[in-house]
Amino acid sequence: MTEPLNDLSRLCIHTITTKNWNLEQAIEGYVQAGVPGVTVWRQWLDGIGAPRAGELLRTSGLDVVSLCRGGFYVADTEAGRSEAVDDNRRAIDEAAAIGAPLVVLVCGAQPGVPLLDARGMIRDGIEASLSHATQCGVKLAIEPLHPMYAADRSAINTIRQANDMAEAIGSPHCGVAVDVYHLWWDPELESEIRRCGEAGRLFAFHVCDWLSPTRDLLNDRGLMGDGCIPIRQIRGWVEATGFHGYNEVEIFSDELWRLDPADFTGKIKTAYLQHV
Amino acid sequence: MTEPLNDLSRLCIHTITTKNWNLEQAIEGYVQAGVPGVTVWRQWLDGIGAPRAGELLRTSGLDVVSLCRGGFYVADTEAGRSEAVDDNRRAIDEAAAIGAPLVVLVCGAQPGVPLLDARGMIRDGIEASLSHATQCGVKLAIEPLHPMYAADRSAINTIRQANDMAEAIGSPHCGVAVDVYHLWWDPELESEIRRCGEAGRLFAFHVCDWLSPTRDLLNDRGLMGDGCIPIRQIRGWVEATGFHGYNEVEIFSDELWRLDPADFTGKIKTAYLQHV
Repeated sequence: MTEPLNDLSRLCIHTITTKNWNLEQAIEGYVQAGVPGVTVWRQWLDGIGAPRAGELLRTSGLDVVSLCRGGFYVADTEAGRSEAVDDNRRAIDEAAAIGAPLVVLVCGAQPGVPLLDARGMIRDGIEASLSHATQCGVKLAIEPLHPMYAADRSAINTIRQANDMAEAIGSPHCGVAVDVYHLWWDPELESEIRRCGEAGRLFAFHVCDWLSPTRDLLNDRGLMGDGCIPIRQIRGWVEATGFHGYNEVEIFSDELWRLDPADFTGKIKTAYLQHV
Repeated sequence: MTEPLNDLSRLCIHTITTKNWNLEQAIEGYVQAGVPGVTVWRQWLDGIGAPRAGELLRTSGLDVVSLCRGGFYVADTEAGRSEAVDDNRRAIDEAAAIGAPLVVLVCGAQPGVPLLDARGMIRDGIEASLSHATQCGVKLAIEPLHPMYAADRSAINTIRQANDMAEAIGSPHCGVAVDVYHLWWDPELESEIRRCGEAGRLFAFHVCDWLSPTRDLLNDRGLMGDGCIPIRQIRGWVEATGFHGYNEVEIFSDELWRLDPADFTGKIKTAYLQHV
């Protein structure tokens, strides 16, 4: 049995989890709550800009865990795919500017594009992004997404697919982000987490919970403990590979977004200690 | 490239697809429309009873393709699991009474039951159902369900899992139902369809489409051609194994259920010839 976490030293929150806080409010809220890590969503840089955001983050003392999200490499035109690579270049620049060592990739999918073609575009897109990432000292993490997003968000839907692709790409700057929401059902989860870790490619670990029933495909994720995912067991598999990075709380929830963000941050801390 | 179907001789409709028709209306509607096959959902036997339903079906000349649905073997009490086996015995009796050679299994899942345990219960449940099925001349088909149903409907979510379980059970009366809605995203779909067919275990083929966006996890399936599933390509893989059974149209859709069932049946015929 994996031991409970007994402090918040590895807790990271994604800015989208506290959606009603802008970046400055989130920084202040996390610092006050004793949350040491933050993953910044790109929309939180709108208006303020990455250089100024980087100053605020460095001053705050928060650890910047990653930037979400790059990817979206799949498009049915050459121009669209080229634009995606350009946009990932900008994401990598933003990550470097805010001190994020990692960009998490939602790899992309498009209803008119067959999945096999989409996967080829994803590989091409990642390979086209890697030299800039390497120059900037930023890593890229393929995040397999739940199969319910295969039509329009990602054609990479199992951890084995993510491992296969990272292995085929074969760069120390390309790895995998494991998110329990996307992967908890995967029959190969334990063995492929082991494979991922042994290859040195387990770059990030995201937590939340799966509600039953789930009322919305996108924005009905649960707080840890409110659903059926064996989060602690999965954390045990991840840590057995030697991973000791942050446990990142990434929750999209129309219901939870209605809470006061400071109150919600308090609930996250409690749930983190009890269920992660 | 798989050739289009040029007639309706292998078209089957699930009674739930034309939800507003009771069994007698569905029989009359399908016969009038020239639809030769029907899969009967158990709720359509309520009130009328399986023996009388069997008479009506035999008189109609329709081919009874299968009975939906058995399974739901997962429960957190011994009593619950025992009740499930009893209920599957009744389903097998009903199938025999209406002349259905197959019961399709939605295997079961329950939020409090770990997936590994659930899979054990499913195997135990199927094995407990098989002798009665064999005596009645009824086969059982494991239907892998989309991973978005892993919490509460089925802990079998990939075709490989279904094949592995059918192989482990090792009875000629236990096979697999392939539903494009549940499996279109599966990276192993083509190879595992081949494996399934070579083992003589591909017992049924269900079609509909995946809409983007999908607005509801349960009841927002699309008519063939309205979504992104390469249905004809998958039918080609299925037929390459030697399968020449029915193409069964199984659509749950709050939107399409609002149509007049006769009009909807007409749309199904058109979509079948154009997109299946």
